[in-house]
Amino acid sequence: MCGRTWRAGRASRRTRGWRKSSAGGAGARRPGCAMPSPGGGIDTPVPPRRRIREREGNTADAPPPPRGPGRRMSSLDPLFRPRSVAVIGASTDPAKIGGRPVAYLLRAGYAGRILPVNPNAPEVQGLPAFASLDAVPGEVDLAVVTVPAAAVPAAIEACIRKRVRAVVMFSAGYAETGEAGRAAQAALVARCREGGIRLLGPNALGLMNPGDGVYATFSASLHASWPKPGRVAIATQSGAVGTWCFTLLADRGAGISHLVTTGNEGDVDVAACIDWLADDPATGVILTYLEGARDGARLLAALEKCRARGKPVVAMKVGTSEVGAAATESHTGTLAGADAGYAAAFQAAGAWRAGSLAEAADIAAACTAGPLPRGRSVGIVTISGGAGAFLADAAAAQGFDVPALPEEAQAELRAVISFAGTRNPVDTTAQVANEKDAFGRMLEIMLRHGRFDMLVGFLAFLAENPARLDPALPALKRARQAWPLVPFLFGMRAPVATRAMLLQMGIAGFDDPNQAMQAATALAWLGEQQDRRLPGLPSPAPRALPDGPLDEAACRALLSEAGLPFAPSYVAHSAEEACDAAAALGWPVVLKVLSPNLAHKSEAGGVRLDLCDAAGLRAAWDSMLAEVRERAPQARVNGALVSPMLRGGVEVVLGMTRDPVFGPLLMFGLGGVFVEVLRDVGFRLAPLTRDAALDLIRSVKGFPLLDGARGRPKVDLGAIADALVALSRFAEAHPEAAGVEVNPFLALPEGGFGLDAVILRATG
Amino acid sequence: MCGRTWRAGRASRRTRGWRKSSAGGAGARRPGCAMPSPGGGIDTPVPPRRRIREREGNTADAPPPPRGPGRRMSSLDPLFRPRSVAVIGASTDPAKIGGRPVAYLLRAGYAGRILPVNPNAPEVQGLPAFASLDAVPGEVDLAVVTVPAAAVPAAIEACIRKRVRAVVMFSAGYAETGEAGRAAQAALVARCREGGIRLLGPNALGLMNPGDGVYATFSASLHASWPKPGRVAIATQSGAVGTWCFTLLADRGAGISHLVTTGNEGDVDVAACIDWLADDPATGVILTYLEGARDGARLLAALEKCRARGKPVVAMKVGTSEVGAAATESHTGTLAGADAGYAAAFQAAGAWRAGSLAEAADIAAACTAGPLPRGRSVGIVTISGGAGAFLADAAAAQGFDVPALPEEAQAELRAVISFAGTRNPVDTTAQVANEKDAFGRMLEIMLRHGRFDMLVGFLAFLAENPARLDPALPALKRARQAWPLVPFLFGMRAPVATRAMLLQMGIAGFDDPNQAMQAATALAWLGEQQDRRLPGLPSPAPRALPDGPLDEAACRALLSEAGLPFAPSYVAHSAEEACDAAAALGWPVVLKVLSPNLAHKSEAGGVRLDLCDAAGLRAAWDSMLAEVRERAPQARVNGALVSPMLRGGVEVVLGMTRDPVFGPLLMFGLGGVFVEVLRDVGFRLAPLTRDAALDLIRSVKGFPLLDGARGRPKVDLGAIADALVALSRFAEAHPEAAGVEVNPFLALPEGGFGLDAVILRATG
Repeated sequence: MCGRTWRAGRASRRTRGWRKSSAGGAGARRPGCAMPSPGGGIDTPVPPRRRIREREGNTADAPPPPRGPGRRMSSLDPLFRPRSVAVIGASTDPAKIGGRPVAYLLRAGYAGRILPVNPNAPEVQGLPAFASLDAVPGEVDLAVVTVPAAAVPAAIEACIRKRVRAVVMFSAGYAETGEAGRAAQAALVARCREGGIRLLGPNALGLMNPGDGVYATFSASLHASWPKPGRVAIATQSGAVGTWCFTLLADRGAGISHLVTTGNEGDVDVAACIDWLADDPATGVILTYLEGARDGARLLAALEKCRARGKPVVAMKVGTSEVGAAATESHTGTLAGADAGYAAAFQAAGAWRAGSLAEAADIAAACTAGPLPRGRSVGIVTISGGAGAFLADAAAAQGFDVPALPEEAQAELRAVISFAGTRNPVDTTAQVANEKDAFGRMLEIMLRHGRFDMLVGFLAFLAENPARLDPALPALKRARQAWPLVPFLFGMRAPVATRAMLLQMGIAGFDDPNQAMQAATALAWLGEQQDRRLPGLPSPAPRALPDGPLDEAACRALLSEAGLPFAPSYVAHSAEEACDAAAALGWPVVLKVLSPNLAHKSEAGGVRLDLCDAAGLRAAWDSMLAEVRERAPQARVNGALVSPMLRGGVEVVLGMTRDPVFGPLLMFGLGGVFVEVLRDVGFRLAPLTRDAALDLIRSVKGFPLLDGARGRPKVDLGAIADALVALSRFAEAHPEAAGVEVNPFLALPEGGFGLDAVILRATG
Repeated sequence: MCGRTWRAGRASRRTRGWRKSSAGGAGARRPGCAMPSPGGGIDTPVPPRRRIREREGNTADAPPPPRGPGRRMSSLDPLFRPRSVAVIGASTDPAKIGGRPVAYLLRAGYAGRILPVNPNAPEVQGLPAFASLDAVPGEVDLAVVTVPAAAVPAAIEACIRKRVRAVVMFSAGYAETGEAGRAAQAALVARCREGGIRLLGPNALGLMNPGDGVYATFSASLHASWPKPGRVAIATQSGAVGTWCFTLLADRGAGISHLVTTGNEGDVDVAACIDWLADDPATGVILTYLEGARDGARLLAALEKCRARGKPVVAMKVGTSEVGAAATESHTGTLAGADAGYAAAFQAAGAWRAGSLAEAADIAAACTAGPLPRGRSVGIVTISGGAGAFLADAAAAQGFDVPALPEEAQAELRAVISFAGTRNPVDTTAQVANEKDAFGRMLEIMLRHGRFDMLVGFLAFLAENPARLDPALPALKRARQAWPLVPFLFGMRAPVATRAMLLQMGIAGFDDPNQAMQAATALAWLGEQQDRRLPGLPSPAPRALPDGPLDEAACRALLSEAGLPFAPSYVAHSAEEACDAAAALGWPVVLKVLSPNLAHKSEAGGVRLDLCDAAGLRAAWDSMLAEVRERAPQARVNGALVSPMLRGGVEVVLGMTRDPVFGPLLMFGLGGVFVEVLRDVGFRLAPLTRDAALDLIRSVKGFPLLDGARGRPKVDLGAIADALVALSRFAEAHPEAAGVEVNPFLALPEGGFGLDAVILRATG
């Protein structure tokens, strides 16, 4: 339990001075467990370190920003937390793109040095300006490049001369414009790398760090709403989406630690930002929006680092991408499409995948309200019976427990409000609006008796104005502090300031009670993922596939060697050899043509089932080979495979396809209509552990068929899982294998056997 | 096309004076088609008919409210649009429950007479008060009863003496409290009925009609937000949910025509309210929230009336209800559960079922922006490329077309902004914020070339402040008016007043671009439902089931007579008779025990398949009867049924269960794992038309198996549909049949046959 709480000790030195004295107070009530209070833990926003602006003396170096205890230096520190910011192309007009960063830094009271570079103005927005970067005295951590693309090379050379450590580049006209732009961007990135400069952009909206007053952005959204410091970091490729997310969070009362938008990702990408944010003491939750990732392994590692640090990640991935030609050759590859890799990656790293930006903001804000829940038992409280009914429906649909309160608790609730609904959902009735602390007292009774993991509710208009909320507030606060591990998620009508105040107390508010339940679903899942880890399995040494095309016998041999069990089989080159094989295997048998260049045996007439005796087998041999010659004249025939005709069990499909970003993806599904018609399959990343394989098997809708549904025998799930793990290791060991399909694999009450196998070789 | 447009001519006399002169202007550009302009059609809110309050002379009768042309009088008119309102228990304190209706009526400038009844005060909130209702001069349309339950009987008697026509009753302590309360409520309702009074409540929050300034409610939410008149009517059982919906609508810039909350529904229920609102000229869209319905037929009729009047209904139904014992005896009944009836009813009547209140409000508000779309082709426009990607993903997931714009259109778009994305999604880029009317011009190019049915987009921060929006507004308005039939649905950041202004122009705004696409989905579906109608099939004359228990042979005979085809079969009373039957039918055959009291033949060993000859049949006869005697000694055995062993085709399940609210529900699913494991079934209400039956068949996930998936033969869908229609008529004709199951029904490439049948008799 203690291992699951958020780490109060992770707070940075810079935040310590701002800590409420209440921090740890509630935790102290439970001896032996160092729990943060919901109001004083990781969710405490960090006010900006404003200072009185020294417009005259704007030359003194600010002290280097302190870092969290034991935190290592990162080459991105000067980007996210610079001690000095030069603006190249700074405008005297604060409304212009080159003027905005200066205006925003001034408005934010940025404590470092602001260094406008403008060859034509001695002063920019009240600050002394420099004719060139070379003329700037002292060190420059970050340069914001606002000039058009044509002027960029000179600006970068100046940055290299000045040993600038990071550049934010607004300038557009690079990879987003076509081939010439891509080349220009590659040259730009190479030059920055040579010069030891980390580059955000080009074509980026830049970043904000409200806690430190850093605004290296030209976002116009700041005219309308000014960010408040808080615990959510936003990392997106799209600038518009990033600023949209920050305003959605603001609506929910949540502030931000950083907003970083990566644009063309010449150097710094979203994965690198997430990696840095995982170590950032000001960040408690990460909201990310991806259009694509260059490097799946780095993205996974960054997500995993967040999990290890106890920081939930809420991710949104959109857009379709091209899938390699080799992948679409296989059934598995077609089923995977372009999205299965991302889905499997978020699943593996325990990041919640949101379906919309509003959902992402709801959940990220809710994550700041306290530790993640540790179970699926939900208390439901409403001040209207009607809302209780649909919250109970929604909880049931999510697989939550909504346990009835014990009779003594119900009696206590009735003692507060005689006509309340007391079972769970608890309906306090609108009467609580008239009785000072009735609502908080009822919550306390629920929590004391109910042992709930989460509290979800509907406050209706209780929080809409202070006259109604204020009398209820002390008891509400008491309940929250006494149960700091239980998230409070309430649908409520409330002004943004009230939302922020309640979130600060550890109570997340939503525009709709259903959204509160949706957030509960996400939080419960995120909580379940917290103790998991990506497998640290050693990768097997890479091995080459044998030369030449691979027929079924060769595929079986390779996969058998890797640990995948197959039904016994013999290769026969004549009907007589086939009869000998059948005699050895036992009748009846199956006869399948062997050809390295025949993708669809059945369609070419190359399969004969259920052969019961030698006469039948001989006849089948002749007719099969004749049919194949006719239907697939190009097929090179190496004889035929003889294997026993097995019955019973359940046919499943094991597959592997290679995702261009995330590498081998393992697929599992039930055979026949489940794969063909319902596309009822699941995917997981390699390396696959046995537990993950079992989880994958259980994830398909047809799973009850393997588990004894309606009187069927249960099959050996462990045997399927072992086969999937072997397939995963095979995929890792054989980078040349673009895809594998074992279809069918016959799952039996004890053990299981592959009955067919295809391995696709990577082309090109 | 013209038939689908909303009826401008339906506006009431009272609204005509308020019409904008632009009404019809845009429509006139398309000759032959009387189209409302989006800004001047049904979505024009009706300002309240305020008058200068005559506090002194508050005795003159207001003129009777005018009604729409040709509209018939309804007994609910005095409830929804009273000419005079008495408040029994009126308080001098406007904050008290008895004081609020008076305060609200005064604030709204209600044009009729406000008649406070208070024995202890000569004046209430500045109005002369009456010691009793008897002392009130003139007629009283509506009395609001705010007194406690104990004082209610006297108040009702006074209402009857005064010939009051409708009562809104806040008083609680009735059916919601238990048995005694139910009895008191029944007496109250009976007395009102005798006295010719329509009753809303008891235990109701009452109603609002902002257009006429009628406020017969004690809702405290009015302190925080005051309703604006508009085109959405809200009808709910729960008061808290009703007021919540009105505030959600207000957030979206949509006003309301009525908010009516029915509480205990002693007399007036939600269905009656919907029925009245369907005829109300001020109402264009209905949002309803149901916990349950007493009378399914009346609810359906009311929903259907809304459809006939071109008024979309957005419905939310929550809570689970008890299902009759007879229903759960059958597989069909168990699969239906408590919700299938409501789902089928909304489907049949073309009402959109929303999953949350926020979704319901989004869609209801969007419905006020103009006519429903007439197809599924979507133009996507964003001012950020990132949002375009996820809108395109979401559109594809909804089965929308997102056709590429023709090259000439793309060239025109590039002429406006050279680096815009022009294919569809169109990415105008944030540049439109700087160029006066670029956004509107680009919309116009899209609409002119794209022939889109809907326009979905993302405005980001364009509408957040007037400085950015105002320059774009004229061109935006022009585009909207030139394409009045194409809904504009945009994710946007905007203040509520801007939202309202844009909605008034016919542009619906959403907090999240995904919500805009979700609304597009709902609008497209609602549009598709507009031309459909509930079948007006004559009900067959009711017939009794034969006496005594029904064995399979009897069930087959009954259903055959009703038009359901079955495979031929003979009843045999001995092995010899069975052999004769098999010879007549042709081998192989199936043998099934006949017993009127054996529910599960197979489990009792009462089925023998694939009998190929007389010897096998004789042996099977003996062993089957012996096994049944042993496993089900209580079963009365009437011999056995002999039928041919059929192969091929696809096994499906046809079923009927009787919903307690909506009557017969027809079920369809594929057999085997589809029903048993995946619960992949659909339900429709009786009477079922052939088209509805085909729609039902196509609705299941396994449908491709019937339609030739992966080389399978296509089965005869018409034959299945005919069988379902026959089953529907059988259910209507035999009210004693609580359930029917034809499982399996063998669907063949031509025709199909029932292979087994069970009819459950209603108990009690």
